[in-house]
Amino acid sequence: MEKKQVPDIVIARLPLYLQTLNRLDQDGEYNTSSKDLGKKIGISAAQIRKDLSHFGEFGKQGTGYSISFLKEKLEDILHVDKVWDMALIGVGFLGHAIANFNGFQNHGFQIKCIFDNDPEKIGTKIGDYEIYDSNRLEEIINQKKIKVAMITVDAEQAQEVADLLVKADVKAILNYAPVKLITPKEVQVQNIDPILELQHMTFYLE
Amino acid sequence: MEKKQVPDIVIARLPLYLQTLNRLDQDGEYNTSSKDLGKKIGISAAQIRKDLSHFGEFGKQGTGYSISFLKEKLEDILHVDKVWDMALIGVGFLGHAIANFNGFQNHGFQIKCIFDNDPEKIGTKIGDYEIYDSNRLEEIINQKKIKVAMITVDAEQAQEVADLLVKADVKAILNYAPVKLITPKEVQVQNIDPILELQHMTFYLE
Repeated sequence: MEKKQVPDIVIARLPLYLQTLNRLDQDGEYNTSSKDLGKKIGISAAQIRKDLSHFGEFGKQGTGYSISFLKEKLEDILHVDKVWDMALIGVGFLGHAIANFNGFQNHGFQIKCIFDNDPEKIGTKIGDYEIYDSNRLEEIINQKKIKVAMITVDAEQAQEVADLLVKADVKAILNYAPVKLITPKEVQVQNIDPILELQHMTFYLE
Repeated sequence: MEKKQVPDIVIARLPLYLQTLNRLDQDGEYNTSSKDLGKKIGISAAQIRKDLSHFGEFGKQGTGYSISFLKEKLEDILHVDKVWDMALIGVGFLGHAIANFNGFQNHGFQIKCIFDNDPEKIGTKIGDYEIYDSNRLEEIINQKKIKVAMITVDAEQAQEVADLLVKADVKAILNYAPVKLITPKEVQVQNIDPILELQHMTFYLE
Protein backbone atom coordinates (compact mmCIF):
# COMPACT_ATOMS: atom_id res chain seq x y z
CA MET A 1 0.00 0.00 0.00
CA GLU A 2 2.77 2.40 0.98
CA LYS A 3 4.22 1.91 -2.49
CA LYS A 4 1.51 3.95 -4.12
CA GLN A 5 1.80 6.76 -1.63
CA VAL A 6 5.51 7.43 -1.42
CA PRO A 7 6.93 9.46 -4.34
CA ASP A 8 9.55 7.59 -6.33
CA ILE A 9 12.01 10.43 -5.79
CA VAL A 10 11.86 9.63 -2.06
CA ILE A 11 12.43 5.92 -2.71
CA ALA A 12 15.45 6.83 -4.85
CA ARG A 13 17.03 8.56 -1.84
CA LEU A 14 16.60 5.68 0.62
CA PRO A 15 19.52 3.60 -0.78
CA LEU A 16 21.72 6.67 -0.34
CA TYR A 17 20.73 6.88 3.32
CA LEU A 18 21.44 3.18 3.74
CA GLN A 19 24.83 3.55 2.03
CA THR A 20 25.76 6.35 4.41
CA LEU A 21 24.57 4.41 7.47
CA ASN A 22 26.65 1.42 6.37
CA ARG A 23 29.69 3.63 6.14
CA LEU A 24 29.08 5.14 9.59
CA ASP A 25 28.59 1.62 10.94
CA GLN A 26 31.89 0.50 9.40
CA ASP A 27 33.54 3.51 10.98
CA GLY A 28 32.38 2.24 14.38
CA GLU A 29 29.66 4.82 14.96
CA TYR A 30 26.50 3.91 16.88
CA ASN A 31 24.28 6.96 16.55
CA THR A 32 23.60 9.65 14.01
CA SER A 33 21.19 12.51 13.40
CA SER A 34 19.31 13.83 10.39
CA LYS A 35 21.66 16.83 10.53
CA ASP A 36 24.76 14.60 10.45
CA LEU A 37 23.34 12.39 7.70
CA GLY A 38 22.25 15.42 5.72
CA LYS A 39 25.72 16.92 5.87
CA LYS A 40 27.28 13.69 4.64
CA ILE A 41 24.79 13.28 1.81
CA GLY A 42 24.29 16.88 0.83
CA ILE A 43 20.57 16.93 1.60
CA SER A 44 18.80 19.01 4.25
CA ALA A 45 18.06 17.43 7.62
CA ALA A 46 14.39 18.37 7.17
CA GLN A 47 14.25 16.47 3.86
CA ILE A 48 15.68 13.35 5.48
CA ARG A 49 13.22 13.50 8.36
CA LYS A 50 10.35 14.01 5.91
CA ASP A 51 11.49 11.13 3.70
CA LEU A 52 11.77 8.74 6.64
CA SER A 53 8.46 9.87 8.12
CA HIS A 54 6.69 8.13 5.23
CA PHE A 55 7.66 4.85 6.86
CA GLY A 56 7.40 5.51 10.59
CA GLU A 57 9.16 7.07 13.56
CA PHE A 58 12.77 5.89 13.56
CA GLY A 59 14.55 8.47 15.70
CA LYS A 60 14.13 10.18 19.02
CA GLN A 61 13.93 13.91 19.47
CA GLY A 62 17.31 15.00 20.78
CA THR A 63 19.13 11.68 20.58
CA GLY A 64 18.75 11.06 16.84
CA TYR A 65 18.90 7.65 15.21
CA SER A 66 20.43 4.36 16.26
CA ILE A 67 22.49 3.46 13.20
CA SER A 68 21.92 -0.30 13.44
CA PHE A 69 18.18 0.17 13.98
CA LEU A 70 17.72 2.59 11.07
CA LYS A 71 19.90 0.38 8.83
CA GLU A 72 17.71 -2.60 9.64
CA LYS A 73 14.54 -0.63 8.95
CA LEU A 74 15.81 0.67 5.61
CA GLU A 75 16.98 -2.80 4.57
CA ASP A 76 13.52 -4.04 5.41
CA ILE A 77 11.78 -1.26 3.47
CA LEU A 78 14.03 -1.73 0.43
CA HIS A 79 13.67 -5.52 0.62
CA VAL A 80 17.39 -6.07 0.94
CA ASP A 81 17.09 -7.83 4.29
CA LYS A 82 17.39 -10.86 2.00
CA VAL A 83 19.85 -11.57 -0.82
CA TRP A 84 18.52 -11.31 -4.37
CA ASP A 85 20.00 -13.67 -6.95
CA MET A 86 20.95 -11.86 -10.14
CA ALA A 87 21.67 -12.76 -13.75
CA LEU A 88 24.28 -10.87 -15.75
CA ILE A 89 23.95 -10.83 -19.53
CA GLY A 90 26.92 -9.79 -21.65
CA VAL A 91 30.57 -10.46 -20.86
CA GLY A 92 32.46 -7.63 -22.53
CA PHE A 93 34.85 -5.42 -20.57
CA LEU A 94 32.00 -3.98 -18.52
CA GLY A 95 30.31 -7.33 -17.82
CA HIS A 96 33.68 -8.64 -16.72
CA ALA A 97 34.17 -5.70 -14.36
CA ILE A 98 30.71 -6.18 -12.86
CA ALA A 99 31.18 -9.93 -12.47
CA ASN A 100 34.34 -9.18 -10.52
CA PHE A 101 32.76 -6.47 -8.36
CA ASN A 102 32.66 -7.73 -4.79
CA GLY A 103 30.30 -5.11 -3.41
CA PHE A 104 26.97 -6.76 -4.20
CA GLN A 105 26.73 -9.42 -1.54
CA ASN A 106 26.75 -7.22 1.54
CA HIS A 107 24.05 -5.02 0.07
CA GLY A 108 21.36 -7.53 -0.79
CA PHE A 109 22.52 -9.00 -4.11
CA GLN A 110 24.61 -11.76 -5.59
CA ILE A 111 25.29 -12.75 -9.15
CA LYS A 112 24.03 -16.26 -9.70
CA CYS A 113 24.53 -16.81 -13.41
CA ILE A 114 26.16 -15.15 -16.40
CA PHE A 115 25.21 -15.34 -20.07
CA ASP A 116 26.90 -14.52 -23.35
CA ASN A 117 26.40 -15.57 -26.96
CA ASP A 118 30.11 -15.81 -27.85
CA PRO A 119 31.02 -19.50 -28.35
CA GLU A 120 34.54 -18.76 -27.12
CA LYS A 121 33.19 -17.51 -23.79
CA ILE A 122 30.37 -20.03 -23.22
CA GLY A 123 31.44 -22.72 -20.75
CA THR A 124 34.38 -20.70 -19.41
CA LYS A 125 34.28 -19.16 -15.95
CA ILE A 126 34.60 -15.74 -14.35
CA GLY A 127 35.54 -16.39 -10.75
CA ASP A 128 33.01 -18.97 -9.57
CA TYR A 129 30.49 -18.32 -12.32
CA GLU A 130 30.17 -20.40 -15.44
CA ILE A 131 29.16 -18.48 -18.54
CA TYR A 132 26.02 -19.95 -20.11
CA ASP A 133 24.79 -19.70 -23.69
CA SER A 134 22.31 -16.83 -24.03
CA ASN A 135 20.01 -19.32 -25.77
CA ARG A 136 19.42 -20.88 -22.38
CA LEU A 137 18.56 -17.59 -20.70
CA GLU A 138 14.84 -18.15 -20.25
CA GLU A 139 15.28 -21.78 -19.17
CA ILE A 140 17.97 -21.15 -16.56
CA ILE A 141 16.52 -17.92 -15.14
CA ASN A 142 13.15 -19.60 -14.78
CA GLN A 143 14.68 -22.63 -13.14
CA LYS A 144 16.71 -20.55 -10.69
CA LYS A 145 13.72 -18.24 -10.07
CA ILE A 146 15.87 -15.16 -10.65
CA LYS A 147 14.00 -11.84 -10.52
CA VAL A 148 16.82 -9.32 -10.96
CA ALA A 149 19.11 -8.98 -13.99
CA MET A 150 21.85 -6.71 -15.30
CA ILE A 151 22.22 -6.08 -19.02
CA THR A 152 25.73 -5.32 -20.26
CA VAL A 153 25.33 -6.19 -23.94
CA ASP A 154 25.56 -3.69 -26.82
CA ALA A 155 22.76 -1.20 -27.44
CA GLU A 156 21.67 -3.17 -30.50
CA GLN A 157 21.04 -6.37 -28.54
CA ALA A 158 19.68 -4.89 -25.32
CA GLN A 159 15.97 -4.79 -26.19
CA GLU A 160 16.03 -8.39 -27.39
CA VAL A 161 17.68 -9.46 -24.13
CA ALA A 162 15.17 -7.43 -22.13
CA ASP A 163 12.29 -9.16 -23.94
CA LEU A 164 13.75 -12.55 -23.00
CA LEU A 165 14.20 -11.46 -19.39
CA VAL A 166 10.58 -10.33 -19.21
CA LYS A 167 9.49 -13.69 -20.61
CA ALA A 168 11.62 -15.38 -17.95
CA ASP A 169 9.65 -13.43 -15.30
CA VAL A 170 12.48 -11.09 -14.31
CA LYS A 171 11.01 -8.09 -12.46
CA ALA A 172 13.95 -5.68 -12.18
CA ILE A 173 16.51 -4.83 -14.84
CA LEU A 174 19.62 -2.73 -14.40
CA ASN A 175 20.47 -1.65 -17.92
CA TYR A 176 24.00 -0.58 -18.83
CA ALA A 177 23.29 -0.47 -22.57
CA PRO A 178 22.85 3.10 -23.89
CA VAL A 179 19.28 2.60 -25.02
CA LYS A 180 15.89 3.09 -23.43
CA LEU A 181 14.26 -0.33 -22.93
CA ILE A 182 10.58 -0.92 -23.53
CA THR A 183 9.16 -3.23 -20.86
CA PRO A 184 5.78 -3.91 -19.24
CA LYS A 185 4.84 -1.50 -16.46
CA GLU A 186 5.33 -4.09 -13.73
CA VAL A 187 9.01 -4.56 -14.66
CA GLN A 188 11.36 -2.08 -12.99
CA VAL A 189 14.15 -0.67 -15.13
CA GLN A 190 17.01 1.60 -14.10
CA ASN A 191 19.67 2.77 -16.51
CA ILE A 192 23.34 3.35 -15.92
CA ASP A 193 24.91 5.44 -18.65
CA PRO A 194 28.00 7.59 -18.08
CA ILE A 195 27.21 9.75 -21.14
CA LEU A 196 23.91 10.91 -19.63
CA GLU A 197 25.61 11.82 -16.34
CA LEU A 198 28.52 13.58 -18.05
CA GLN A 199 26.26 15.63 -20.31
CA HIS A 200 24.13 16.55 -17.30
CA MET A 201 27.25 18.05 -15.70
CA THR A 202 28.67 19.82 -18.75
CA PHE A 203 25.46 21.83 -18.99
CA TYR A 204 26.78 23.70 -15.95
CA LEU A 205 30.32 24.18 -17.31
CA GLU A 206 31.41 27.08 -19.45
CA MET B 1 21.43 33.05 -16.79
CA GLU B 2 19.19 30.22 -17.93
CA LYS B 3 21.14 27.93 -15.58
CA LYS B 4 19.52 29.43 -12.51
CA GLN B 5 16.06 29.22 -13.94
CA VAL B 6 15.82 25.72 -15.32
CA PRO B 7 15.22 23.03 -12.68
CA ASP B 8 18.02 20.46 -12.48
CA ILE B 9 15.50 17.67 -13.03
CA VAL B 10 14.81 19.16 -16.47
CA ILE B 11 18.53 19.35 -17.26
CA ALA B 12 18.87 15.69 -16.25
CA ARG B 13 16.34 14.73 -18.94
CA LEU B 14 18.00 16.61 -21.82
CA PRO B 15 20.79 14.02 -22.34
CA LEU B 16 18.08 11.37 -22.60
CA TYR B 17 16.37 13.36 -25.36
CA LEU B 18 19.69 13.74 -27.14
CA GLN B 19 20.41 10.02 -26.81
CA THR B 20 17.06 9.22 -28.37
CA LEU B 21 17.53 11.73 -31.19
CA ASN B 22 20.94 10.21 -31.94
CA ARG B 23 19.36 6.80 -32.20
CA LEU B 24 16.62 8.06 -34.53
CA ASP B 25 19.26 9.80 -36.60
CA GLN B 26 21.28 6.57 -36.86
CA ASP B 27 18.11 4.80 -37.93
CA GLY B 28 17.86 7.23 -40.84
CA GLU B 29 14.93 9.26 -39.53
CA TYR B 30 14.66 12.99 -40.29
CA ASN B 31 11.73 14.17 -38.23
CA THR B 32 10.12 13.32 -34.94
CA SER B 33 7.43 14.64 -32.60
CA SER B 34 7.13 15.11 -28.86
CA LYS B 35 4.63 12.25 -28.92
CA ASP B 36 7.06 9.96 -30.71
CA LEU B 37 9.97 10.95 -28.47
CA GLY B 38 7.80 10.56 -25.39
CA LYS B 39 6.77 7.07 -26.36
CA LYS B 40 10.39 6.06 -26.89
CA ILE B 41 11.56 7.56 -23.59
CA GLY B 42 8.54 6.83 -21.42
CA ILE B 43 7.77 10.48 -20.70
CA SER B 44 4.66 12.41 -21.68
CA ALA B 45 4.74 14.53 -24.85
CA ALA B 46 3.61 17.52 -22.77
CA GLN B 47 6.59 17.10 -20.43
CA ILE B 48 9.02 17.05 -23.34
CA ARG B 49 7.49 20.17 -24.88
CA LYS B 50 7.60 21.91 -21.50
CA ASP B 51 11.22 20.89 -20.89
CA LEU B 52 12.33 22.14 -24.31
CA SER B 53 10.34 25.36 -24.01
CA HIS B 54 12.82 26.51 -21.34
CA PHE B 55 15.34 26.94 -24.15
CA GLY B 56 13.30 28.18 -27.11
CA GLU B 57 10.95 27.11 -29.86
CA PHE B 58 12.43 24.08 -31.60
CA GLY B 59 9.49 22.48 -33.33
CA LYS B 60 6.61 23.44 -35.53
CA GLN B 61 2.98 22.83 -34.69
CA GLY B 62 1.90 19.87 -36.79
CA THR B 63 5.24 18.97 -38.33
CA GLY B 64 7.18 18.31 -35.12
CA TYR B 65 10.96 18.51 -34.82
CA SER B 66 13.76 18.27 -37.33
CA ILE B 67 16.00 15.64 -35.71
CA SER B 68 19.28 17.17 -36.86
CA PHE B 69 18.20 20.65 -35.78
CA LEU B 70 17.01 19.58 -32.33
CA LYS B 71 20.14 17.45 -31.88
CA GLU B 72 22.31 20.43 -32.67
CA LYS B 73 20.39 22.64 -30.28
CA LEU B 74 20.61 20.12 -27.43
CA GLU B 75 24.33 19.58 -28.03
CA ASP B 76 24.74 23.33 -27.84
CA ILE B 77 22.70 23.63 -24.63
CA LEU B 78 24.56 20.74 -22.97
CA HIS B 79 27.93 22.08 -24.18
CA VAL B 80 28.77 18.89 -26.03
CA ASP B 81 29.07 20.65 -29.39
CA LYS B 82 32.75 20.41 -28.44
CA VAL B 83 34.77 17.46 -27.13
CA TRP B 84 35.72 17.51 -23.43
CA ASP B 85 39.02 15.93 -22.47
CA MET B 86 38.70 13.63 -19.49
CA ALA B 87 40.97 12.08 -16.90
CA LEU B 88 40.30 8.59 -15.55
CA ILE B 89 41.66 7.73 -12.12
CA GLY B 90 41.88 4.09 -11.06
CA VAL B 91 42.61 1.15 -13.32
CA GLY B 92 40.89 -1.81 -11.72
CA PHE B 93 38.40 -3.95 -13.65
CA LEU B 94 35.96 -1.06 -13.91
CA GLY B 95 38.55 1.54 -14.91
CA HIS B 96 39.75 -0.88 -17.55
CA ALA B 97 36.22 -1.32 -18.88
CA ILE B 98 35.68 2.44 -19.04
CA ALA B 99 39.04 3.06 -20.72
CA ASN B 100 37.99 0.56 -23.39
CA PHE B 101 34.50 2.02 -23.83
CA ASN B 102 34.30 3.53 -27.30
CA GLY B 103 31.07 5.47 -26.80
CA PHE B 104 32.49 8.68 -25.37
CA GLN B 105 33.89 10.38 -28.43
CA ASN B 106 30.71 10.77 -30.41
CA HIS B 107 28.91 12.25 -27.45
CA GLY B 108 31.22 15.07 -26.46
CA PHE B 109 33.96 13.37 -24.46
CA GLN B 110 37.31 11.66 -24.81
CA ILE B 111 39.65 10.17 -22.27
CA LYS B 112 42.94 12.04 -22.40
CA CYS B 113 44.92 10.57 -19.52
CA ILE B 114 44.71 7.73 -17.01
CA PHE B 115 46.15 7.51 -13.51
CA ASP B 116 46.86 4.74 -11.03
CA ASN B 117 49.11 4.34 -8.01
CA ASP B 118 50.11 0.72 -8.71
CA PRO B 119 53.81 0.65 -9.76
CA GLU B 120 53.08 -2.38 -11.94
CA LYS B 121 50.51 -0.41 -13.94
CA ILE B 122 52.28 2.96 -14.16
CA GLY B 123 53.95 3.40 -17.54
CA THR B 124 51.94 0.63 -19.20
CA LYS B 125 49.20 1.41 -21.71
CA ILE B 126 45.49 0.78 -22.16
CA GLY B 127 44.85 1.19 -25.85
CA ASP B 128 46.44 4.51 -26.72
CA TYR B 129 46.61 5.82 -23.18
CA GLU B 130 49.67 5.66 -20.99
CA ILE B 131 48.94 5.14 -17.30
CA TYR B 132 50.50 7.91 -15.20
CA ASP B 133 51.47 7.84 -11.54
CA SER B 134 48.66 9.31 -9.41
CA ASN B 135 51.32 11.49 -7.79
CA ARG B 136 51.40 13.47 -11.01
CA LEU B 137 47.65 13.97 -11.15
CA GLU B 138 47.54 17.67 -10.31
CA GLU B 139 50.51 18.51 -12.53
CA ILE B 140 49.28 16.69 -15.63
CA ILE B 141 45.61 17.65 -15.34
CA ASN B 142 46.59 21.27 -14.90
CA GLN B 143 48.94 21.15 -17.83
CA LYS B 144 46.36 19.52 -20.09
CA LYS B 145 43.63 21.88 -18.80
CA ILE B 146 41.31 18.94 -18.14
CA LYS B 147 37.98 19.89 -16.52
CA VAL B 148 36.16 16.53 -16.42
CA ALA B 149 37.27 13.42 -14.55
CA MET B 150 36.02 9.94 -13.73
CA ILE B 151 36.90 8.29 -10.43
CA THR B 152 37.09 4.49 -10.45
CA VAL B 153 39.22 3.94 -7.35
CA ASP B 154 38.05 2.21 -4.15
CA ALA B 155 35.65 3.95 -1.77
CA GLU B 156 38.50 4.49 0.70
CA GLN B 157 40.61 6.49 -1.77
CA ALA B 158 37.87 8.36 -3.61
CA GLN B 159 37.66 11.47 -1.42
CA GLU B 160 41.42 11.94 -1.51
CA VAL B 161 41.38 11.70 -5.30
CA ALA B 162 38.45 14.12 -5.48
CA ASP B 163 40.37 16.64 -3.34
CA LEU B 164 43.31 16.44 -5.75
CA LEU B 165 41.00 16.86 -8.74
CA VAL B 166 39.46 19.96 -7.19
CA LYS B 167 42.94 21.37 -6.59
CA ALA B 168 43.75 20.67 -10.24
CA ASP B 169 40.72 22.80 -11.20
CA VAL B 170 38.53 19.93 -12.41
CA LYS B 171 34.91 21.11 -12.55
CA ALA B 172 32.93 17.90 -13.15
CA ILE B 173 33.49 14.50 -11.53
CA LEU B 174 31.76 11.28 -12.45
CA ASN B 175 32.22 9.13 -9.36
CA TYR B 176 31.98 5.35 -9.57
CA ALA B 177 33.20 4.80 -5.99
CA PRO B 178 30.37 3.91 -3.59
CA VAL B 179 30.83 6.95 -1.41
CA LYS B 180 29.39 10.44 -1.36
CA LEU B 181 32.13 12.94 -2.23
CA ILE B 182 32.46 16.28 -0.49
CA THR B 183 33.39 18.99 -3.00
CA PRO B 184 33.00 22.76 -3.36
CA LYS B 185 29.62 23.88 -4.68
CA GLU B 186 31.04 24.93 -8.04
CA VAL B 187 32.26 21.39 -8.78
CA GLN B 188 29.64 19.14 -10.36
CA VAL B 189 29.49 15.56 -9.11
CA GLN B 190 27.37 12.70 -10.39
CA ASN B 191 27.51 9.21 -8.93
CA ILE B 192 27.20 5.88 -10.64
CA ASP B 193 26.52 3.09 -8.20
CA PRO B 194 24.68 -0.10 -9.19
CA ILE B 195 23.75 -0.86 -5.57
CA LEU B 196 21.73 2.35 -5.29
CA GLU B 197 19.86 1.58 -8.50
CA LEU B 198 19.23 -2.05 -7.57
CA GLN B 199 17.92 -1.19 -4.12
CA HIS B 200 15.70 1.46 -5.65
CA MET B 201 14.09 -1.28 -7.77
CA THR B 202 13.79 -3.97 -5.09
CA PHE B 203 11.64 -1.59 -3.05
CA TYR B 204 8.93 -2.32 -5.63
CA LEU B 205 9.44 -6.11 -5.63
CA GLU B 206 7.69 -8.51 -3.29
